[in-house]
Parts: sequence; C-alpha cells; structure tokens
Amino acid sequence: MTPVRIAIDAMGGDHGPSVTVPASLQALQFHPNLHLTLVGDQSVLQLEIDKHQELAFDRSRLSILHASERVEMDEAPAQALRYKKDSSMRSAINLVKEGQTEACVSAGNTGALMAIAHFVLKTIEGVDRPAIISSMPGYDKGMRMLDLGANVDSSAANLVQFAIMGSIVASVIDNIPRPKVYLLNIGEEVIKGNKQVKETAKLLAETQAINYQGFIEGNALFKGEADVIVCDGFVGNVALKSSEGAAMFIMRLIKEGFQRNFLTRLAGLIALPILKRVIKQFDPSRYNGATFVGLKGIVVKSHGHANVKGFVHAIEEAILQAEKNILHRISDEIEKSLKSTSFGTN
Amino acid sequence: MTPVRIAIDAMGGDHGPSVTVPASLQALQFHPNLHLTLVGDQSVLQLEIDKHQELAFDRSRLSILHASERVEMDEAPAQALRYKKDSSMRSAINLVKEGQTEACVSAGNTGALMAIAHFVLKTIEGVDRPAIISSMPGYDKGMRMLDLGANVDSSAANLVQFAIMGSIVASVIDNIPRPKVYLLNIGEEVIKGNKQVKETAKLLAETQAINYQGFIEGNALFKGEADVIVCDGFVGNVALKSSEGAAMFIMRLIKEGFQRNFLTRLAGLIALPILKRVIKQFDPSRYNGATFVGLKGIVVKSHGHANVKGFVHAIEEAILQAEKNILHRISDEIEKSLKSTSFGTN
Repeated sequence: MTPVRIAIDAMGGDHGPSVTVPASLQALQFHPNLHLTLVGDQSVLQLEIDKHQELAFDRSRLSILHASERVEMDEAPAQALRYKKDSSMRSAINLVKEGQTEACVSAGNTGALMAIAHFVLKTIEGVDRPAIISSMPGYDKGMRMLDLGANVDSSAANLVQFAIMGSIVASVIDNIPRPKVYLLNIGEEVIKGNKQVKETAKLLAETQAINYQGFIEGNALFKGEADVIVCDGFVGNVALKSSEGAAMFIMRLIKEGFQRNFLTRLAGLIALPILKRVIKQFDPSRYNGATFVGLKGIVVKSHGHANVKGFVHAIEEAILQAEKNILHRISDEIEKSLKSTSFGTN
Repeated sequence: MTPVRIAIDAMGGDHGPSVTVPASLQALQFHPNLHLTLVGDQSVLQLEIDKHQELAFDRSRLSILHASERVEMDEAPAQALRYKKDSSMRSAINLVKEGQTEACVSAGNTGALMAIAHFVLKTIEGVDRPAIISSMPGYDKGMRMLDLGANVDSSAANLVQFAIMGSIVASVIDNIPRPKVYLLNIGEEVIKGNKQVKETAKLLAETQAINYQGFIEGNALFKGEADVIVCDGFVGNVALKSSEGAAMFIMRLIKEGFQRNFLTRLAGLIALPILKRVIKQFDPSRYNGATFVGLKGIVVKSHGHANVKGFVHAIEEAILQAEKNILHRISDEIEKSLKSTSFGTN
C-alpha cells in the first residue's frame, strides 16, 4: 500500500490534544500505511502520547512538529492569519503546501482554518473560491452538501464550480457512479428562486460534467433523493443550522413528554437508547469531516467538539481523499468543464 | 362589541368547502361579533352549510357571494392573476379592497394569493413589498418570523420595513411590549453575513421603532430568545422548510427505532401520544395563519392542508388583526420611521 502522510493540527478543537492525540494513535493502528505528523506543543503532545503505550503500531510512522502558538476557537480569522504565524494550524497547512504531507486535519476555528488554508494553499486553477462540503444524514442514505458557509454572495459561476467539485467528491469518496446533483431552492411561492439560483440553474443544465437533476426544497433535504446538494454558503449554513436547531427542539419536547407520569417515565427508560441512536444519527460529530474543496491541498475540518471517534473519522476522510487523489480529479474535471462552457471565472 | 366582517375564500385549500365551511360556521358560533361572507360556488357552499344545522348562531351574520371560478393549488400565479377574474380568491380580496370586509382568509395557492392581493390591494405607503409572516414554535414560547417566501433578493431597506412590521405584529397581536427583533445570520465562518445582512444590521441599529437585538443563528431559531426574526424570503423559506424536513426525518427515525423488538414496540405504544403531541407542536397547521403584512388590507393565509381547527385558527388571526387595527398601526409606525431615518424606498 502506498503510504499516506497527514498533518494533524493537534492543538485545535474544543478538547485539543486530549482528543486529537488518542484519535491519531488509533488511526495509526487501524491504517498501516498511515504516517502522521502531530503539530503543536512538543511537550504537551509527548505527554499525551505517553498515556497510550498500549496502542501497538510502528512508532516510526508518528512524528511531532513543534509549534509555539495555537489559534483560539473564537479568534478572528484575520487576526489568526496575520499574527499566528507559528500556530499549530498554520504549520500543519504549511506541511501540505511543502508537499511533506498529502493532507491536514484540524478541529480548530473554521473561519481561521479557511482563511489560512486559502492564503497558504491557493485555489485549484479554474476554481475561484474554496467551499465547505459535508456529509449529511438521510432516510435511506446520506448526501453531500456544499457550500456550508465558506462563501456568502456567491456568483452563479461559483455555484457551478461547487457543483462539479461536490459531484467529484460524491463519486470518488462515496463511490456513487453518476451522483445526482440538486440545487437548493424554494418552491410554490410567487417567484421560484432568487437571481442567483435562476442563473445557476441555467448554467448547471448546460454543464456536461454533472448529472444535474433540478431543484430541491428544504423539506426534502433528508429524503435521500440527492447525492449532492449545492447552495450559497449563507443559505447552506442557515439550512444546516436550522435543521440542527429543529432536531434539538424536538428531542427536548420528546424528553419533556416522557417526564409526564410514571408510565411515560418507564416508557422513556426503554426509549432512551432509541433516542440516543437518533441523536447520534443527527449529530454533526458523526457526520464529521467537513472538507474544504477547491484548494491545492486536502484540508479536512473536524467538528470543534468532536470526540475521539469523530476525529478518527475526520482523519479517515483525509486518508480516503489522499488515496483517491481527489485533487487531481477535481482539477481535471474543472479544466475540462472550463473548456466546454461559459462559466469560467466571475 | 364592534362587528368584524371577514371574507372567506371558501373554495381554497386542499379540502375546499369541506374544511372552510364548517370552520367558518364554528368561528361564527365562537365570535358573536363576527360576520362572514363565504365566497365561492353558491350551490356547493349552500349544500355544505346545510350539513351543519346543529350549529347555533344568528344566520344573518353569514352570507354567500357567488364566484364562478377557483384558483387551483398548482396554478401559476401570473395565470391566476390574469385569467381568473371571477375566482373565489379574487372576489374575496375585492371585498377587502371595496371596504365591505376588514379582512380575507384563504387556504389557497400562496403564490396566486400574494400576486392577486398585491395587485388588488397595493402596499401601505412607505412599504415597498409585502412579506409573509408566521408564528413559529419555540422552547418556552414561540416567535414570529418574516419573510418566509414572498420576496427573494430583498434589499436592506426591505428588510428594515419587514422588521418594523414584524415588531408591530408581535406587539399588537402577541401582546409583547417591546418585541426583541433579531436578524438571521450565520456565525463563526470567515465573513459574518452577506452584503444584504451587513447593510441591514447597520440600518436596524439606527431604527428607533424597534428593539433590535442583533444576529441570531439557525440553530437558535427555536430557543425562544427572539420575538421577531427577520430574513430574506429565500433564506426564511429555506430555514422553515429545512426545519420541517429535519423534524420529519427525526420522527421517522424514532418510529423505526420503536419497531426494533417487543419491548420497544410496547414502549412505542406508550410513547405514541407523546410523539403525536410533538408533531402537533411542530406542525405548520397548528401554527396556522401566516399573514401577508404590508398590504392595504388584511390577508391571512391558512396552510393549504389545514383541517377545520387550523382554518378556524386562521380566521381568528384575521379577527385579531382587524380588531386591533393592525393596518393603521403599521402605517403610522412606517410613516414615523420614514421621517426619522434613511431607509425609505430602494
């Protein structure tokens, strides 16, 4: 097996090394071709590594790169970009830039990660802006949705580029032969869609590279028809977070309902594992490993409060993308599409 | 008590007169000051009325206005506006225009209702576009959200007008002294908000007429902090429908979970009424009576598949708005704000 080298922003995330280090060690144990560079405070990381002597793998596949700074979870992206030159996040991204690793994984501040990754790695030729793509759950199967908040005020051309990239991720990573691509829109009301959506729909219909299926409405997001759903980052972020909000609200109503009397409390005890499974299914940390697509380097964003399992999942997403050579697939497809259509740059 | 006169588009909605007529008769029974004009096919309506002889109220408070046509639920708004001049929907709106009723209620095609109401009634002085406002559920209390799909590509000035109107609805109809108004936005990512939101936030902060509280994210929609949430119609519609989609998805996961074995099926039987209550809480037909605000006339939109109870609720929303003189309150407040700020028309 070809070795895969990944840089880990070991200081990132709500839990920092206490999650990133054990997750990294587990991933090394599971994947014999994996080489990891943990980036962060040398002594802190070593201490954390020493706690897990029981995990057996060839220790030469693990190295540490010291970084003296850490990007805080609530730090302004511009500030992090400008002043945290020796942060674990930036150093991890630098390793990708320098070709020393194929990918990097961070559970850190999303905005800062996007700003730094965009600045350091730049976008693939023909891609104007990177997007955030993530797996989302669904009735019989999940799907990929993008953009989830990297861009607001996207042009139709941007959205077509997102569609092409999303389609490649779904086909290469999720093994779907001709992924069904939908454009998020609103129905039934006076005017179907805003200017952006109308323009995008026209361009998507002309785009050979994707299997475009038309519009999808918010209430069909989880029905499993779509393999890829494309939208503006503002709209995508609102859709994602509203869904999370509704999910939390409903679970709370149900839990309150079970408190009503002795019988319902008893039923609640039996129902508890069921509810837990449902929450898990809907939990962003299960659907972990949002990826930035469109950059000249693989950057996987783990949820900030991911647990060890969630962070392992994010590392595995990075492994898959590296092994399946997602960057070349995207740049080839974008180049082909640029030649055949009109949506180049905006 | 001052009489309130309301026109009912009796042919509208998925169920037509079989819902609108019994709901109207019930409303007449509940509200002794209510006068209703049922608009639609005279003979069909009479037949439906005759089925409910048991309901006791002064029959002089009920009249029928014959209309020979009906706007179909899937008819294109432009088509309905142009060719259905004798539809029950249009005739009901005409009654408002002519001052023969204070309000009208329809469960018909939203797009057509908006197009016809806008064309016939026009907007209040100082309001560029009408918006769709609706009640939404929440942890301890619900809130009002607008726009839910009447407008896409709204300007910042439009959104400020929506904020003022929403605030008046919350204070006048929901009896909230100084309603907390929030602007829907996305957080944490690179750029907080798109151009529209940034511009709107500036204007809202200057607007004396409202108690502006800043941004709210999608995952906080149902937390009950806000009394009014303002957003572009495209975004609002996506947020609303994504929430509905997530709710349906979760209920399905839970129901499947209860099918697992004998014990869980038993627990499911006990849990069933709890789940039903939750669905109800989240069901748009409970939160019925989306209203168009900004028109020179009260138009309440009932959900298309509302049942009798839901349609009664929509009629009661119209009664409240008429009794509390919402139109004058809005036009006064808009006029005051126009004088004091810069966001007049776009």
